[in-house]
Amino acid sequence: MMLLSSMDRRQSSSFARYLDGESWEIKDALRDAIAKCELFESSSYELTLDQSRDLTAERLYHLLRLPFMKEHLRNQLKEKQKGFINKSLGITEIICSADMSTGVKLGVVCGLYGGAVSNLGSPEQKIKWYLPVSELEFTGMFAMTERGHGSNVRGIITEARYNQSTQEFIIHTPSEDAQKMYIGNAMKGNYAAVFAQLIINGESQGPHCFIVPIRDQNGVMWPGVTTIDMKHKEGLHGVDNGILIFNNVRIPRENLLGKFGSVSADGLYSSPVLSKSSRFNAMLAALTPTRLGLTVQAMAAMKLGLVIAVRYSHSRRQFGPKDQDEVKIIEHQTQYLRLMPHLAAALALIFTTRYAAGLMDDALCQGQDLQSNRALQALVAGLKAYSTWENVACLQDCRECTGGMGFMMENRIPSLKCDSDVFVTFEGDNMVMLQVVVRELLTQYTKLMGNNLVMGLIRNWTSSVSDSLRTSFLGFSVDKVGDLMFLLKAVSFRERVLQRSLASRLYSKVEKNKEEFFMAWNACLHHVTTLAMAHIHRVTLEQFALAVRECHIKEDRALLTK
Amino acid sequence: MMLLSSMDRRQSSSFARYLDGESWEIKDALRDAIAKCELFESSSYELTLDQSRDLTAERLYHLLRLPFMKEHLRNQLKEKQKGFINKSLGITEIICSADMSTGVKLGVVCGLYGGAVSNLGSPEQKIKWYLPVSELEFTGMFAMTERGHGSNVRGIITEARYNQSTQEFIIHTPSEDAQKMYIGNAMKGNYAAVFAQLIINGESQGPHCFIVPIRDQNGVMWPGVTTIDMKHKEGLHGVDNGILIFNNVRIPRENLLGKFGSVSADGLYSSPVLSKSSRFNAMLAALTPTRLGLTVQAMAAMKLGLVIAVRYSHSRRQFGPKDQDEVKIIEHQTQYLRLMPHLAAALALIFTTRYAAGLMDDALCQGQDLQSNRALQALVAGLKAYSTWENVACLQDCRECTGGMGFMMENRIPSLKCDSDVFVTFEGDNMVMLQVVVRELLTQYTKLMGNNLVMGLIRNWTSSVSDSLRTSFLGFSVDKVGDLMFLLKAVSFRERVLQRSLASRLYSKVEKNKEEFFMAWNACLHHVTTLAMAHIHRVTLEQFALAVRECHIKEDRALLTK
Repeated sequence: MMLLSSMDRRQSSSFARYLDGESWEIKDALRDAIAKCELFESSSYELTLDQSRDLTAERLYHLLRLPFMKEHLRNQLKEKQKGFINKSLGITEIICSADMSTGVKLGVVCGLYGGAVSNLGSPEQKIKWYLPVSELEFTGMFAMTERGHGSNVRGIITEARYNQSTQEFIIHTPSEDAQKMYIGNAMKGNYAAVFAQLIINGESQGPHCFIVPIRDQNGVMWPGVTTIDMKHKEGLHGVDNGILIFNNVRIPRENLLGKFGSVSADGLYSSPVLSKSSRFNAMLAALTPTRLGLTVQAMAAMKLGLVIAVRYSHSRRQFGPKDQDEVKIIEHQTQYLRLMPHLAAALALIFTTRYAAGLMDDALCQGQDLQSNRALQALVAGLKAYSTWENVACLQDCRECTGGMGFMMENRIPSLKCDSDVFVTFEGDNMVMLQVVVRELLTQYTKLMGNNLVMGLIRNWTSSVSDSLRTSFLGFSVDKVGDLMFLLKAVSFRERVLQRSLASRLYSKVEKNKEEFFMAWNACLHHVTTLAMAHIHRVTLEQFALAVRECHIKEDRALLTK
Repeated sequence: MMLLSSMDRRQSSSFARYLDGESWEIKDALRDAIAKCELFESSSYELTLDQSRDLTAERLYHLLRLPFMKEHLRNQLKEKQKGFINKSLGITEIICSADMSTGVKLGVVCGLYGGAVSNLGSPEQKIKWYLPVSELEFTGMFAMTERGHGSNVRGIITEARYNQSTQEFIIHTPSEDAQKMYIGNAMKGNYAAVFAQLIINGESQGPHCFIVPIRDQNGVMWPGVTTIDMKHKEGLHGVDNGILIFNNVRIPRENLLGKFGSVSADGLYSSPVLSKSSRFNAMLAALTPTRLGLTVQAMAAMKLGLVIAVRYSHSRRQFGPKDQDEVKIIEHQTQYLRLMPHLAAALALIFTTRYAAGLMDDALCQGQDLQSNRALQALVAGLKAYSTWENVACLQDCRECTGGMGFMMENRIPSLKCDSDVFVTFEGDNMVMLQVVVRELLTQYTKLMGNNLVMGLIRNWTSSVSDSLRTSFLGFSVDKVGDLMFLLKAVSFRERVLQRSLASRLYSKVEKNKEEFFMAWNACLHHVTTLAMAHIHRVTLEQFALAVRECHIKEDRALLTK
């Protein structure tokens, strides 16, 4: 909490406001509300699992009861709300800084469950299944991942058979691998947004999302539903993750969220999207804002870790010149070199995330569906992977740079580490995210080159040569802004070289040698992930450079200490 | 426990025995004893802090009561015990695999407290202060680190003033910065080996080690001693770390461990080592075996993490060619490329640690003092840094490669991560360890070049040229063993280039530009740490290559899959 109040103080400076961005007002209001709230005063690492979960739930409910939060939740149900996503991310960041479990639980209830209802449901469904959440009448959970299918979520095997005689869906878990796993809020929530294969007359229409009652407000379970507590995790002790098992659970026909597919009373399926595969992609696209939320959660952890480690490094002294005072440990070259690049990365990620959120807000305001904006989805996937890995590396260095103090729970770094470690694999494993990025890059590449890949490959080498010439020219520029620009050209060059060579490798494997695509892709996987990281580094650096240019004079220099 | 018993099975193979080394017999005996012991059956992550500490203590006492363990502890009191260190490390590894907290607590009681008494004490002192530990009459702790001084331990400020009239030392904590911190076993142990500045008639003789009673067997505190519980850490919940504060605590004159300095009844100080600085180095050298123990603890965690992650990767399937079964995740190129290098590093570290332990055992058997063997100390410091960092990276990849499963406590990876994370900073921060390595390398370099550094630098460039020629020649060798040899030459070359350029940078800063040594060194710190890592990589690869050569045919090939 000390940190939050010191953030308040910092708030007065224009630089801090520049970093907070357009949503600074709601962020300040939230900082203030949290600083005043007793529930956030004590730390939670001394509590039992149950106590910790109860405290997290209380904290969440307290925040959701705040008038401006209620209003924000209601706005989620309206369409075309200007700046809604940017605001949501600002809220996420502040709550995660105060307590990561509360932030993640908010993400489950509002981002995932709320996102599913508001993006996949009809207007009536939104009012029925999400409006009461803003009134705290009930809370929800999001049940997509199964024991057997996490990354390859298209392969889920939970079934939803339509029973025409009762006009119900029968939700069923046919095998152990079909159990819904790691479900957040599973031990407390009342409704679940469950992904299951929609089966009508024995024919599957692919995965769809259903609202399944789990337990009522008194904790009485819905018939056929079993929840199993997953108990202890590395971190996020306040989040109650569990397993859901459905034994022929009956739910009304209206509980299918119908935006991308619905079933008439007499069992006829209709959907605005014809192909099963695009239909599923459209549903997944609804999760894009939540994915960007993860980037913000990781950034909240990084910022906090860096504040703690950098301050400590300025107060702790160790070693020094003979017969003189010991020096501050930040003055040890390695300490400085370990912490500062993370600070630079955190700054760059702030602006890149804001850029992505802006694109998303613009798209939604213009009434575009997110699923059609593949470039945006690739950007968000790349940012998710980059930011969450950067967070793990950053907190590890913060922990090491604060020595034994960094191992003590009271100094927050260990819990930040343990809480945010899961981000690298959940809501899309980072390795899978990187592949999403590269598929998009290759699609762009193919479009650019036309269908004639061979001609494309030849053209490619010529421009590659001119690339390297241009890059060397830039090497002569020596002023400070030039440095950033030079770095930018260098990472762009790396990205283009990797992209072309990957396209050519894949082309020769698939077209010339007739290898199966999955096998060819897998043989290039290291190349794929390297390209994806190169791409996201370039985009991030670009946004950072833009932010530096648009910033006022004084702060400009401070930012440039990269 | 499942893992331990599966290790038992694996034990039958000659390869496993080759990996276990000479101490395979005691390791097997210990595996067997742990598998049979009920105390090790349940996991400890559901316990409260107190329960967890009690369980750890019970586990440790159970193991110390085993006849072969008792015998081993008694051997610690004898001099020139062949293979004692290698055996101790084998014991450490097995106990750490079963439970890291128990292993670390064993390290505190036997390695650190026991090491201090047996290496710094007279024969009578050993019998008085350590023999009872083997009988479990009491346990000890090791109090060196202070709030203000962790890495720079020479600067500790706890005082031990000699009072001639009562023939006592007065142990005192003069300020908050002098509090003994992070002390393991502080809440349960009976005696502490306390490092304090020895002051006689107002004059300091530098840090010495004193046995200070903390509490008796009934928990009654010794007058003037205060302990403060440090409670929750990132991991090692079973280890009771605390703060010790001494308020003019009186201890008899005989409680000064006298090997490197003692005080006569009438207050005359005598020491076999004249310079204060060498005296302190000699005392620190006594800790070298414990430092190597850390490498073994990190390896135990790595091995276990890899066993879990590699097995899971062979059973879990996700994604695959169109219309075919999903493939095992180990077949995804990135999964394989993430895990295998860690496996190779773990194997290489096994042999390098054994090599270092062998050198230490030989030195002790020949009656050499460890403090004079600076090369060995540099090797152990380098191994400590390399292995503990490699462990952090390895477990992070194991965690990520096992997805959500890797975040669940029941799958052990999270607790391995949290327990072993402290190794990178404790008992010598890794950054400091790397500097120890480089000081030794530069000393060797100066000896090699004679006093004429300038001539040395010239000679240096000539041999550098011939180096690169030799290296390119080796590039032509294409057989498999050649690959390993080529890699070895490459890392040796890198090390030599870094070493020469560092020597020349330091020379020009200190000799030519007359910079203060600490400042010059600090300006090169990144170079220093890079050189140290290059050095330890080379030594490790060398030992791995040697082990491959000395191994029998079949396993040879398995090992070579690096």
